[in-house]
Amino acid sequence: MEVLMKEGKLVYVNGLLLEAEQAYVGIEDLALNRGYGVFDFFRVRDGVPLFMEAHLHRLQHSARQMHLTLQLNDEQLSQLVHHLIAQNACKDCGIKILVTGGISANGYSLGSSPNVVISTHELPPQNPAHYTSGLRLITHEYRRDLPAVKTINYLMGIWLQPMVTQAGADDVLYCWQGEVHECPRSNIFIVSRSGEVFTPVHGVLHGITRRHVLNLSRHRYPTHDTEVTRDMLYDAAEIFVTSTTKRIAPVVSIDGDPVGNGQPGPITRQLMDDLQQFEWQYLEERRP
Amino acid sequence: MEVLMKEGKLVYVNGLLLEAEQAYVGIEDLALNRGYGVFDFFRVRDGVPLFMEAHLHRLQHSARQMHLTLQLNDEQLSQLVHHLIAQNACKDCGIKILVTGGISANGYSLGSSPNVVISTHELPPQNPAHYTSGLRLITHEYRRDLPAVKTINYLMGIWLQPMVTQAGADDVLYCWQGEVHECPRSNIFIVSRSGEVFTPVHGVLHGITRRHVLNLSRHRYPTHDTEVTRDMLYDAAEIFVTSTTKRIAPVVSIDGDPVGNGQPGPITRQLMDDLQQFEWQYLEERRP
Repeated sequence: MEVLMKEGKLVYVNGLLLEAEQAYVGIEDLALNRGYGVFDFFRVRDGVPLFMEAHLHRLQHSARQMHLTLQLNDEQLSQLVHHLIAQNACKDCGIKILVTGGISANGYSLGSSPNVVISTHELPPQNPAHYTSGLRLITHEYRRDLPAVKTINYLMGIWLQPMVTQAGADDVLYCWQGEVHECPRSNIFIVSRSGEVFTPVHGVLHGITRRHVLNLSRHRYPTHDTEVTRDMLYDAAEIFVTSTTKRIAPVVSIDGDPVGNGQPGPITRQLMDDLQQFEWQYLEERRP
Repeated sequence: MEVLMKEGKLVYVNGLLLEAEQAYVGIEDLALNRGYGVFDFFRVRDGVPLFMEAHLHRLQHSARQMHLTLQLNDEQLSQLVHHLIAQNACKDCGIKILVTGGISANGYSLGSSPNVVISTHELPPQNPAHYTSGLRLITHEYRRDLPAVKTINYLMGIWLQPMVTQAGADDVLYCWQGEVHECPRSNIFIVSRSGEVFTPVHGVLHGITRRHVLNLSRHRYPTHDTEVTRDMLYDAAEIFVTSTTKRIAPVVSIDGDPVGNGQPGPITRQLMDDLQQFEWQYLEERRP
């Protein structure tokens, strides 16, 4: 969840810095008309874009996978991001880089050059209840198209929102043919009763936070990125999700049934501490 | 395939008539960022919007299914369309009505009011080869999300285009778990060797042209909208697709194998004539 920074702030659109209120994309854009585009999103803390290299690397991968010819390399994107952080005096915020299908000559075929929008976003304070009380998830039988690519296709996630609310839940967990995949905007981790840590490897976006948590977890616990079945979900001692904005958030119920004792567990809390520490170390090394 | 009419032409955007070159949607729009929106598209012939009532009815249905509160009723939309046809001196063209998720407060939750864009499009003359020589299709294992809703999600169709081109084909046919569904932008009909006509009823968008062809076919042949298996596809005597822009286009090969004798068949040609006649009659009754 993020809110576009507007008053007096700038947005990069195809080589121009525009005032945020007046930043527009033409109505022929393929994202607008055909839902075709990719993006990435990362946080800025104390003026330092967190793990930007990894996010830019993934953005380039997403664009290539979608046959989009992004004309900007990582260094150019990085310079634009730093320039925007300085211009918008954006010490702690989110950065979104959107790469759309561009203008299509016939409303369907890919254009020759994508539209690129880089914008700064306020990150509302996370709901503290999610960290102490934890998240409630419901499951839904679904597999995203091209799950390993960070496309703009969130049709199902948004469409399911009223259903999530009605169930008194916080988010939905996509499962597919007996396997656990992911939430619309976060990866899932499962801690077994024997204290092993699992995260699905198939049908998921390979999150940057997911990768960090996997590495941190490997230093402490038997850790596996592998196939995860629904049975493992219902048998879990602890469950948590990871994302750039949430970092680690404990999950306390699935489809109304409590996870473990219904409280955030010790391994989840340990990895939350480890991730904080890891982020802090990254920041210390790069602080101006 | 359609091309936005630009020079000196107007586009309706949220209550305003803007010059087409300067018609934009703000970067916070949920279609642009999350691929969330619906649309409809119909042809104008001799200044008469063809089957507009049916298209507006479907658009309202699509919007409701997607939890979008379209503030304009059919009569208001119809008036806007007629006004735009007059303003843009658009005798023969396509009309697109796009209803997006609107501006989201947090970049994910649905906004309170959608963005509405109504635009006029040039329809390039159809490739005559498609009507005499027919289309070549390849199959792909895929089922669209919310197939009965005309959403803007064409991610898979556009993503598959290079694969279609490489296979020397014209379009892709989605099949799912042994069943035949639809092409990204058209419905499919299959004529069996015994002269019966079938079209899939599950996992498809219920096209307006599909409905007309079903009705016309029922007057001549045993006709079924039902489950259609892949076996029926490979056994077919004739195959054709229907859409607003293509009307009826014969299919002459599937995955490189010829359909029937590899030529457009007699039942396909009969229904092409019937549909022409039906459209003509509709026009005659409404011509100013």
